[in-house]
Amino acid sequence: MLSFDIQEYKERIKKTKKRMETEGIEVLFISQPANMNYLTGYDGWSFYVHQGIIVSLDKEDPIWVGRGMDANGARITTFLKDEDIKAYADDYVQSKVKHPMQFVADIIKTKGWDKKTIAVEMDQFYFTHRCYVELEKALPQAKFKDGNLLVNMVRLVKSDKEIEFMKRAGEIAVKVIQAGIDSVNIGVRECDAAANISSAQIKGTEKYGGDYPAIVPLMMTGEGTSTPHLTWSDRKFQGNEAVILELSGVYKHYHAPVARTIYLGHPPKLMKETADIVTEGLNKTLAFIKPGVSCEEIEAKWREAISHSSVVKESRIGYSIGLNYPPDWGEQTVSLRPGDKMVLEPNMTFHIIPGIWYEKIGFEVDASIRITENGYESLYDFPIELVVKN
Amino acid sequence: MLSFDIQEYKERIKKTKKRMETEGIEVLFISQPANMNYLTGYDGWSFYVHQGIIVSLDKEDPIWVGRGMDANGARITTFLKDEDIKAYADDYVQSKVKHPMQFVADIIKTKGWDKKTIAVEMDQFYFTHRCYVELEKALPQAKFKDGNLLVNMVRLVKSDKEIEFMKRAGEIAVKVIQAGIDSVNIGVRECDAAANISSAQIKGTEKYGGDYPAIVPLMMTGEGTSTPHLTWSDRKFQGNEAVILELSGVYKHYHAPVARTIYLGHPPKLMKETADIVTEGLNKTLAFIKPGVSCEEIEAKWREAISHSSVVKESRIGYSIGLNYPPDWGEQTVSLRPGDKMVLEPNMTFHIIPGIWYEKIGFEVDASIRITENGYESLYDFPIELVVKN
Repeated sequence: MLSFDIQEYKERIKKTKKRMETEGIEVLFISQPANMNYLTGYDGWSFYVHQGIIVSLDKEDPIWVGRGMDANGARITTFLKDEDIKAYADDYVQSKVKHPMQFVADIIKTKGWDKKTIAVEMDQFYFTHRCYVELEKALPQAKFKDGNLLVNMVRLVKSDKEIEFMKRAGEIAVKVIQAGIDSVNIGVRECDAAANISSAQIKGTEKYGGDYPAIVPLMMTGEGTSTPHLTWSDRKFQGNEAVILELSGVYKHYHAPVARTIYLGHPPKLMKETADIVTEGLNKTLAFIKPGVSCEEIEAKWREAISHSSVVKESRIGYSIGLNYPPDWGEQTVSLRPGDKMVLEPNMTFHIIPGIWYEKIGFEVDASIRITENGYESLYDFPIELVVKN
Repeated sequence: MLSFDIQEYKERIKKTKKRMETEGIEVLFISQPANMNYLTGYDGWSFYVHQGIIVSLDKEDPIWVGRGMDANGARITTFLKDEDIKAYADDYVQSKVKHPMQFVADIIKTKGWDKKTIAVEMDQFYFTHRCYVELEKALPQAKFKDGNLLVNMVRLVKSDKEIEFMKRAGEIAVKVIQAGIDSVNIGVRECDAAANISSAQIKGTEKYGGDYPAIVPLMMTGEGTSTPHLTWSDRKFQGNEAVILELSGVYKHYHAPVARTIYLGHPPKLMKETADIVTEGLNKTLAFIKPGVSCEEIEAKWREAISHSSVVKESRIGYSIGLNYPPDWGEQTVSLRPGDKMVLEPNMTFHIIPGIWYEKIGFEVDASIRITENGYESLYDFPIELVVKN
């Protein structure tokens, strides 16, 4: 059931260990689900209980640690040997007395790693403050370091096989946004349109089945378009309102996000002008993208492209994407914004989404791209424009 | 856009403050999305960045804190006054320098609460270790306490309106499991069946639109039934294999989970026997449930009911359910297992799911129930049995 050759996982572990060495980390405890999947293949919706992967410089393969009932899931979805799958008893789950990190600490002690420099992901969801407290209490001789984003940074440049997966996600993305545009009509319930979108996401193409997105279909209507993260209700679409869809195609947890704005009726002046400025600005920004330019230079290009207009954009215009699990398809590593000096390399992948939210209305359009040897290529082919349905 | 009368939110806040007083907490910072929604109505998929609700004993309404672009979402979905919606600038997002908890601390200082006893949710996802570190650093005179599960405990007993929502979720659950059973057939791709299930979840009934579940459709096939938390692939269903579906109906984030096992062909002896023992055991357990009995007594009843058989069940057989967001529809408060002495009261709601996972095969069947004045009622009506499709 592995998505990649074992060799690719081994290569990822090697790169992770190299970063650990550079940062003076001997043992790394990973709880971010995408990082767990990236290093071992582990794939289960079990991240609502504490679990993780231990990587140690002095051991070839990582150790999976999780709840008893999920151990068979680890056996099925990872390449790990049985002896490297460690499951805790069910009375550790949501207990007032026991905590799964005590079990993790026991493994670390058994392996003789309890005097080492241990890093944890200090600002990743799924690693709570209590996790840290329990580890620190149980391992008084360890030296703790922050391993936040360490594996995320390894994920930044994709392998060719990962790019292939993201292009498949892109093929699915086209079907997903088309399903959305086809379904959003006056008198249709928002939930019925969202149902069609979700169905298209999971069905995928005839050749490649889809996966669940790290962010559910976002659907903003009317005044709701003034903000980006709302979902559907059972209200019906009205005439003369905007509908923003922020969606994604997903293949084996790899994402190709796609967002478009639909106007049901004749778009008002502000909407039309904003759409013109943003699409032109996005196209100019894209034309500038190639290896060697930095993330902040790209954002500056965008800023320059819209400087003649009254459109103001205060938030970042994009971020690194790839493999992910809820709650976010962004990788948290690199953002297209002032101060981010990361220089683009081939096979980095980005979601560029210069969303504009006014007080009563908003506009979103985007591109999901891969950096190539000389420039960029889109992960899918879909017109960058305001969709008008009269 | 509020799901409940403002009065109901005010009542919840009152109960929360009462618990805070009892536990010696003056200020409570809440980041768990369901707790945020429960107290204010806030509803957005924005929990992939740091955000929260501050409840203070000396202030009537809570304060919403989040990212700039989500402030309009707070204005639209909560009952809060504009002055109680505090948004941080975008350069706090996933920054190496700034952290949103510094902004939270600034609000606490401005309000003069920085010398008070402040509680945070120490073991809830979405409150990372770094969150704690930043708050502690910025508020050196505050006394920190653990407010984990404080609001979750307030959520334990549902209002009549909440029960109404859960029954609507139950109506949707019947459509969802039926869509699953209808779609799982030899030669059909798993993803196509999952697409139909997800569509049924979101579509809901004609009267009540569905919502996204806190756990995506879980689908285990063949050997995968030996573990509970896998999802679909684009493989086709085979003859003579088991398929476990663990799903939920959802209405405005309130859940009615439903799990059934399908056998495609003539079930082998182990499957048939396990199904008989578990369904009989579940029915006997349900018959025992009424206000006044404790959670551990219910589990003991289950254990007694299956004691004549070879079936062994090591994990908890159920837990409290209700309002929730990914990654979990369980409330993390109360479990049906040894040692949990919580005594049942009317309008508590539970998911009872005595899943059995052997080395190569598994069986799941469940019930989602509300405790009534004299016993219990199911949130939906669907036969408790192994589904055989020949």
